[in-house]
Amino acid sequence: MTRNTIAVGIDLGGTNLKGGLVDKAGALIARRTGPTNLAHGPETVIADMVKLVDTMLDGAGLERCAIVGVGVGSPGPLSPSEGRIIRSANLPGWADVPLRDILSQAIGKPVKIDNDANVAAFGEYWVGAGRDVEDLVMLTLGTGIGGGVILGGRILHGRFENAGEIGHTIVSPEGLPCSCGQRGCLERYASAGAVARRAVDAIKAGKSSVLSSAVASVEPIGCLRVVEAARTGDELCLHIWDEACRFLAIACVNIQHAFNPARIVLGGGMSGAEDFLFDRVREHFISQRWSMHDDYPQIVPAGLGNDAGVIGAAGLLWGNEGYGPTDCD
Amino acid sequence: MTRNTIAVGIDLGGTNLKGGLVDKAGALIARRTGPTNLAHGPETVIADMVKLVDTMLDGAGLERCAIVGVGVGSPGPLSPSEGRIIRSANLPGWADVPLRDILSQAIGKPVKIDNDANVAAFGEYWVGAGRDVEDLVMLTLGTGIGGGVILGGRILHGRFENAGEIGHTIVSPEGLPCSCGQRGCLERYASAGAVARRAVDAIKAGKSSVLSSAVASVEPIGCLRVVEAARTGDELCLHIWDEACRFLAIACVNIQHAFNPARIVLGGGMSGAEDFLFDRVREHFISQRWSMHDDYPQIVPAGLGNDAGVIGAAGLLWGNEGYGPTDCD
Repeated sequence: MTRNTIAVGIDLGGTNLKGGLVDKAGALIARRTGPTNLAHGPETVIADMVKLVDTMLDGAGLERCAIVGVGVGSPGPLSPSEGRIIRSANLPGWADVPLRDILSQAIGKPVKIDNDANVAAFGEYWVGAGRDVEDLVMLTLGTGIGGGVILGGRILHGRFENAGEIGHTIVSPEGLPCSCGQRGCLERYASAGAVARRAVDAIKAGKSSVLSSAVASVEPIGCLRVVEAARTGDELCLHIWDEACRFLAIACVNIQHAFNPARIVLGGGMSGAEDFLFDRVREHFISQRWSMHDDYPQIVPAGLGNDAGVIGAAGLLWGNEGYGPTDCD
Repeated sequence: MTRNTIAVGIDLGGTNLKGGLVDKAGALIARRTGPTNLAHGPETVIADMVKLVDTMLDGAGLERCAIVGVGVGSPGPLSPSEGRIIRSANLPGWADVPLRDILSQAIGKPVKIDNDANVAAFGEYWVGAGRDVEDLVMLTLGTGIGGGVILGGRILHGRFENAGEIGHTIVSPEGLPCSCGQRGCLERYASAGAVARRAVDAIKAGKSSVLSSAVASVEPIGCLRVVEAARTGDELCLHIWDEACRFLAIACVNIQHAFNPARIVLGGGMSGAEDFLFDRVREHFISQRWSMHDDYPQIVPAGLGNDAGVIGAAGLLWGNEGYGPTDCD
């Protein structure tokens, strides 16, 4: 009776394993979070995924036959076509793990995997900030900047399955070195991590700020703390914040010229700055964009918050037809 | 007997109107060039297009029924979906011209129009430097920089039909002002026009160069003249050339992260510098790209030279099935 009515989405993070049961309309009907037990290796984490799924199904009074399959969003680099995690800075010890096949065998259902930012973008396209358009580019402003590109309703992967890495486009050729080996990457200026780090570094180097005493007493400083200081007029924080917004606007100009999407969706922890982010990014975008056209992408906040990854991962399954009936009804 | 065996490609430029007859395999079986009589308005130019087509058909012993239709590559901005040229700096006086419908009515055949760089990219994908891949980004390095993006064998247009304008992505946020209203656009550093202009401007401002006397006697200086001077070790020209190559490499890094194509194809007049261009761009690309991946797009020269536009425009027709038989056989 209930077979194939639910897809499971899993958001595999370096700290947490989040799961959700998602129906065909994109509604999240159950969610559950557990720790990612990285210390015990991929096999344990994958076994935990199976338990997470079964626990959610139990809670909803469903059996495994109710699900069409499982979608997993994971840090990359990974190969969606081969279902394989190649390696990941956020998943130490995971090298060349055939996640799709192991999980599919363990759970007896089709599995799809994709980059975490790609699935978040797909979730926003499906039922979030882009639900009424066909093309969008999403940036997740967190420790770094993840990017996902949806064109004509499909995730853009590219020849080497690494498309959409807008966080590592170069916006300042002589700029700060990035952990990726390049200089002047967008994420070095405009991620939540970069904003916090730049404020702390500047204060340690002697710049004055309302955050100086917090830095001196080694309090952890997050991006939104810098935003708060900037809002009150702290000159250093305002400068760093404005530069982050300006570089995001430059990235938006470049996204416009490259992809010409209907929307650019900004999410992740830094988007918690709300209008203080969006107003500034839009202002810089308007002052920097070219004057030859009448139509520009809208720059909008993500609509699904922390659920985008789980919903988008489940959506990978609904995007595909043809899974047959299972044996429990 | 010969119906629907040929597509016509037309490359509508500000100076010349180029036409070609192209078979289904992409072979150019006839070509012809005439002037673009801009002074007499769009109607005259469109009538000239019809004459150009008939003259080529006559020369090949064919009738109009031999052709499936006509593809036109044109400077933009234009709307491929509406078949309309919106306006163009290179076609003064053309504002909101429904080129597709006028030409189609005049010639009695289906017509498709697209941006000139898009059709060049499509030509290279079809039978040129990208004939064995599905995804490529092409940059035409001329007076400015045109861009075309082919994904999965299709031209990327985007929501507002202006995708692929890589020449106006910002590579130097505090950089030189561009005619488009932005600052630091790629084409302001790395087009043939920019290389020549920057050399002339620097010499006029007092920098010494082997080209100083040519500039003093108001000789026209083109990009390849600057390349020649750079090859002989002229310091100013070498500096400008190296900067052009470095910014092209940055654009290639950004293209890799955005689209992850199999190839990046460089064409246009500046690509006449051959290895002196490609070796340097590749070197800068290798030194600037990130270290997290094993696979990178190849950076390769265009394969079709000046015929890419005509062949690609004709290819727009072959990409579409369903044109019925006509009435002359």
